[in-house]
Amino acid sequence: MNNLFKTFNQTKYQLVNHGPRNVSVLKQALEVIDGQQASDLYGKGKIIENFQEKMAKFLGKETAVFFPSGTMAQQIALRIWCDEKQLKTVAYHPLSHLEIHEEDGIKELHQIKTILLADKNRVIELDDVVTMNEDIACLLLELPQREIGGQLPEYQTLEAISRYCRDKGIKLHLDGARLFEVLPYYQKSATEVCELFDSVYVSFYKGIGGLAGAILAGDQAFTEKSKVWKKRHGGDLISLYPYIISADHYFDLRKGKMDQYYYDAKELARLFNQCSGLSTIPQEPVSNMFHVHFDFPKEKVISILISIHQETGIGITSNLRDTSSESCYSEISVGDQYHQIPNDELEIMFQLLKERLSGLSFIN
Amino acid sequence: MNNLFKTFNQTKYQLVNHGPRNVSVLKQALEVIDGQQASDLYGKGKIIENFQEKMAKFLGKETAVFFPSGTMAQQIALRIWCDEKQLKTVAYHPLSHLEIHEEDGIKELHQIKTILLADKNRVIELDDVVTMNEDIACLLLELPQREIGGQLPEYQTLEAISRYCRDKGIKLHLDGARLFEVLPYYQKSATEVCELFDSVYVSFYKGIGGLAGAILAGDQAFTEKSKVWKKRHGGDLISLYPYIISADHYFDLRKGKMDQYYYDAKELARLFNQCSGLSTIPQEPVSNMFHVHFDFPKEKVISILISIHQETGIGITSNLRDTSSESCYSEISVGDQYHQIPNDELEIMFQLLKERLSGLSFIN
Repeated sequence: MNNLFKTFNQTKYQLVNHGPRNVSVLKQALEVIDGQQASDLYGKGKIIENFQEKMAKFLGKETAVFFPSGTMAQQIALRIWCDEKQLKTVAYHPLSHLEIHEEDGIKELHQIKTILLADKNRVIELDDVVTMNEDIACLLLELPQREIGGQLPEYQTLEAISRYCRDKGIKLHLDGARLFEVLPYYQKSATEVCELFDSVYVSFYKGIGGLAGAILAGDQAFTEKSKVWKKRHGGDLISLYPYIISADHYFDLRKGKMDQYYYDAKELARLFNQCSGLSTIPQEPVSNMFHVHFDFPKEKVISILISIHQETGIGITSNLRDTSSESCYSEISVGDQYHQIPNDELEIMFQLLKERLSGLSFIN
Repeated sequence: MNNLFKTFNQTKYQLVNHGPRNVSVLKQALEVIDGQQASDLYGKGKIIENFQEKMAKFLGKETAVFFPSGTMAQQIALRIWCDEKQLKTVAYHPLSHLEIHEEDGIKELHQIKTILLADKNRVIELDDVVTMNEDIACLLLELPQREIGGQLPEYQTLEAISRYCRDKGIKLHLDGARLFEVLPYYQKSATEVCELFDSVYVSFYKGIGGLAGAILAGDQAFTEKSKVWKKRHGGDLISLYPYIISADHYFDLRKGKMDQYYYDAKELARLFNQCSGLSTIPQEPVSNMFHVHFDFPKEKVISILISIHQETGIGITSNLRDTSSESCYSEISVGDQYHQIPNDELEIMFQLLKERLSGLSFIN
């Protein structure tokens, strides 16, 4: 993997992302900021309050609170809904970020029991919710479902789940780490999507490309409680402005580009799917992201990718994970960099990929 | 209070602090950093690892972990020691940060019971520890005890408490939010003080004057566990570099100035103590900080301070808290700004303060 990462980072062009995560990302956001601008101070001050108001408005929620991380914001959202219902059980997808990437914080810090809904390889449908045997305080839906290539339920399904949850007194929370990225597919505004949910988390370092940081939005009673928990978690920093300034800067820069990323992701997936021995999930992306699944062992695919990185100067991916000993996959997230690749060079790159994967198929 | 804060911020010179907390604090730290410098990535990468190693060495501990906040770092330290002893009880001072400033995170998130040692108005002595009735997993000592003006136990007391705790199998944790600031009084190195403790937290936005952020140091088994809890708390951000860069920058800039701040604090306290109707705690500071207690109602003191801010251009303080309806106090932390005040102007300012407080005494 080290060599894949290294050769990816040495390429002139890259299929994915907005560019390297380096200090210039922060420097660029700070350039337009007056040095005399006062810091936020433990959640107070214009710099944080203005951004919270702006995001509350964009998401169509009464209020919003800036958090250092989504991990913190989402555990807290679920805790608040559990406390309100005096029922420490929630439900979400088996591959939810909370279940697989947070060292069980939700269970270890909040003693919340989790029900895993739906099969790993598909999104949660209305039926999964309706046929649940246990009472829950809150259902978390992740849009798109990142760990399965960024799949989405139909919008009608979302509406039906939302109606059902409201009827049953179940709170609905949106893991919107990549919410902005799915708006073009749904052809909905953030406000319209968020209306279906009681609480919403969005991130500023995925499609937006900021440094880090998250917004948690909902009604005022909810967000006031979230501020208390934010302090308990150790997230009420004296200064969060480096994240706020960069979130604001890159939100303004990129919120209008989500259509482009979505369009580019569909084009890129088509190019991948012309190669044999691989397939994308979803076959046609519904956001800026998808997974490329290779029907070959990881080491063999890495060799090919490294050779292409070095020969074409185009980076395909820096990450590749085993799905079995005979297959592997890569997460592809389209950002600003895809558009900078000259068409003829892109064509040559895919021609090479096609040939070398065919070579593997032949050997197999 | 608003007018006090406002007039303080409009003054040319200020007795306290390093300067305004504004964006230029970050910009200045970033100036010398190459934009191509890669971000840390979820706790990995040179930028975070190098600083952790540097601080581990400075504190004389095996390893160190950078945290977004001390609130997070210290709850986690206590949790680890409780888990190790399978005993969820710790002891600390009644005015510990954990007890009064963290919305009971230690209890709400970790279900840890806290024993309050010693009287509010003095530091913890060996006797308080020895005569404790309950078993505890960990004792937390805060050096200096901020909420009582930054008082310190004698160094021999620290050594005795440390010996006692080791004998009894009680872990000793240092709340060293202002550790660097007490080294001149103790005439000890950070390593010598930290040797007495099993785990140590230090902060980078008090005497150091960085943006935010903390280091938690101890042996490797301890810090490895702390990383797991850091993720659970939502503190394992994809990028912490704005805090790390500023912590590193201002640590290098100010770690050698602690003698000066301590000397200046003693001089400043002497000047305050020449006024009637006030006293400092401690009478002679043992760090860069002390409290000024006024024997008059807050509103009357505010009027005087505002008039002095406006007439002399020297800011005394922006914060004043009631101790009773008839008295109030202010926390004074000496930093870079004190030294910039011309002597003759400082003299005039204290002359005015003396006169106006005498006026109040006379009225009373």
